[in-house]
Amino acid sequence: QWVDLSHTVSLTLTFSHHLYHQSDRYMLSSAAVTLRSSRFAYFAPSARTMSLHVQDMIFRQLFDRETCTYTYLLADAKTKDAVLVDPVIELAERDANLVQELGLNLKYAMNTHMHADHITGSGLLKKLIPGCQSLIAKASGAMADVHVEHGDKVSFGNQTLEVRSTPGHTNGCCTYVSHDGKFALTGDALLIRGCGRTDFQEGSADTLYDSVHSQILSLPNEFSLYPAHDYKGQTVTTVAEEKVYNPRLTKPRETFVDIMNNLNLDYPKKIDVSLPANKVCGLYNLPEDLAAKLKDQ
Amino acid sequence: QWVDLSHTVSLTLTFSHHLYHQSDRYMLSSAAVTLRSSRFAYFAPSARTMSLHVQDMIFRQLFDRETCTYTYLLADAKTKDAVLVDPVIELAERDANLVQELGLNLKYAMNTHMHADHITGSGLLKKLIPGCQSLIAKASGAMADVHVEHGDKVSFGNQTLEVRSTPGHTNGCCTYVSHDGKFALTGDALLIRGCGRTDFQEGSADTLYDSVHSQILSLPNEFSLYPAHDYKGQTVTTVAEEKVYNPRLTKPRETFVDIMNNLNLDYPKKIDVSLPANKVCGLYNLPEDLAAKLKDQ
Repeated sequence: QWVDLSHTVSLTLTFSHHLYHQSDRYMLSSAAVTLRSSRFAYFAPSARTMSLHVQDMIFRQLFDRETCTYTYLLADAKTKDAVLVDPVIELAERDANLVQELGLNLKYAMNTHMHADHITGSGLLKKLIPGCQSLIAKASGAMADVHVEHGDKVSFGNQTLEVRSTPGHTNGCCTYVSHDGKFALTGDALLIRGCGRTDFQEGSADTLYDSVHSQILSLPNEFSLYPAHDYKGQTVTTVAEEKVYNPRLTKPRETFVDIMNNLNLDYPKKIDVSLPANKVCGLYNLPEDLAAKLKDQ
Repeated sequence: QWVDLSHTVSLTLTFSHHLYHQSDRYMLSSAAVTLRSSRFAYFAPSARTMSLHVQDMIFRQLFDRETCTYTYLLADAKTKDAVLVDPVIELAERDANLVQELGLNLKYAMNTHMHADHITGSGLLKKLIPGCQSLIAKASGAMADVHVEHGDKVSFGNQTLEVRSTPGHTNGCCTYVSHDGKFALTGDALLIRGCGRTDFQEGSADTLYDSVHSQILSLPNEFSLYPAHDYKGQTVTTVAEEKVYNPRLTKPRETFVDIMNNLNLDYPKKIDVSLPANKVCGLYNLPEDLAAKLKDQ
C-alpha cells in the first residue's frame, strides 16, 4: 500500500475517513448493489502487505479439513516463545511437531471460545509439550490453567495479543488482537463474509452485532482478520472488506437479528462430545479412539 | 527476524552458511535423527515475517477441500493488476467474485503445470472475466493464450514472477518466483515435507531431484514456499525448513529415486477427465454438470 513510510499515517486516516463515510451510507441505505458494483478503490492488504512491525513474528495458519477449523501458530521469531490458538485434538500431533521443528517454546495452547464442533487440542498439547499451559476466557466457563478477561494481554516473547471480549456466538468468545501485526483472530464472532451461529449455547444475535461492530469492525481498515473457520477455502479477510461485503453484518441490527434467528441450521454433529470435553480442555469424556491415544502419551 | 535493516545482509549470510553446513552433513550421513532433535536455531519467516519489498502486493491463498489444491491470487495493490495461479474449475466463481470485490483486473489465469487431479479454472475464468488470458508453460503441451519458458517473466502491475522450469512431476512443471516478495509458488514440484509423484504423465524422480535442488532449494533460506497442494492442512513452508525436514528431498539422489519408485500410489481418480480438459484450458470434454454450468455463462 505504502512505499514512503512518512505518508503512512496520513494515508491511513484519509482512507479510513473515506471508508467510514461509504460504510455509513451503505448501512443507512439499502442500495447495497450500487456501492458493490462501484468497485472499491482501497483494499487493505492481506497477509502479504504487512507493516514493518511484524518482521519479528512467525505466523502459521493451519487447517482441519474435517471441521474446517483454522489453528494459528504465532511465535516471537527472536525469543521463540509461541502460542497455538484453537488447536484441534486430532491434529495436535501435527501442531506439536511443527512447534518442535521450528524450535519454538509453546507457552499457551489457547482458545477463542469453548467450541461445539470439535474437541480442543489443548489437553493433548499439554501432554505432548510439557510446560505448555491452557488458556481461555473466564466467561467461557471452561477449566484452564490461565483465564483471561476483556482488556488482558497475552504475551509471548516481545509479542502481545490484546484480549477483546466478543460474546454473541457464546458468552465466552474472545477476539485476540495483534496491534503490531495489524491483525485479529476473530474466532467464531466474525467469519469471512459471515459470522458464527447464535442459536445454541448462550448465543445471542443482538449481542453478536454489538461485539462485532464495537470490537472488530472498529479496528483500522487495513487490519487482517483471521477466523476460526472457513467453509469455502478462504483464508483471510480485512476490516475494510467485511465493512462492505459481509452479507449479514452490513445490515441494520434488526435485519441482522432476523437473519440469524431464521437460519434453521442443523444441530451441531459433534456438540454432545465436544462441549463436555472442552469444558475440561479436551481431557474428559473423550471419544474412545482419542482416549486410547491420550493414554499412550 | 531483523529489526535493524543494516544487519540484514550479514545476518542472512551467516545463517545461510550455517544452514548449508548442517544441510550437507544431514545429506551425507543418515543420522537424521540427531540433527532433527537438535532444534534448529534459525527459522525463516512464514507469510508474516516479510521484507519491506512486498508492501505493494496483495496475496491470497485459497483452498479446494475436495482435491486439497491451493489457488493463489496475487495482485499489485496500486495498479490492481492481478493473476490467479492454479485455479480449480468448481471454485472459479468464488475466485472471480473475490477478484471483483477487491476491484482487481485479472490479467492471467495461469497454471504451474497440467494438473491430473482437477480441472483447471482457467477456461471458466476467461468466460467470467473477459480480457483475462490463460497462461502455462510451453513444455506442458497444453493450449493457452500465453506460453512461457524458463527465464521468462510474468508481470502484473509492478510485480514480477520469474518462471523457473522445474520438471519431474510433469515435463511442463514451473515454479513461479517473486524475488521482491521472497516467495515461490512451487506447484507439485515441492510440497510441504514432500513432493509431487513421478509415476505418471512424464514423471521422472531423477529429473525432479535436479529441479528441486537447482531451482527451488537454491533460493535464499528465508524464502517462503507455497505448494499447489497440502493434504495435512499446512499452508506454507520455507527453503530453510525443507532443506532440513523434507523427508524425501534431503536424501541422497539414489535413495530419493528409490523412494519415489516404490510409493505404489493409486491411479489418480480424476486423471481421465482432467488431462483432456486441461489440455485445452478446461473447455473441452468437461464432465456433464460442469459443461452445463459453462453453457449458462
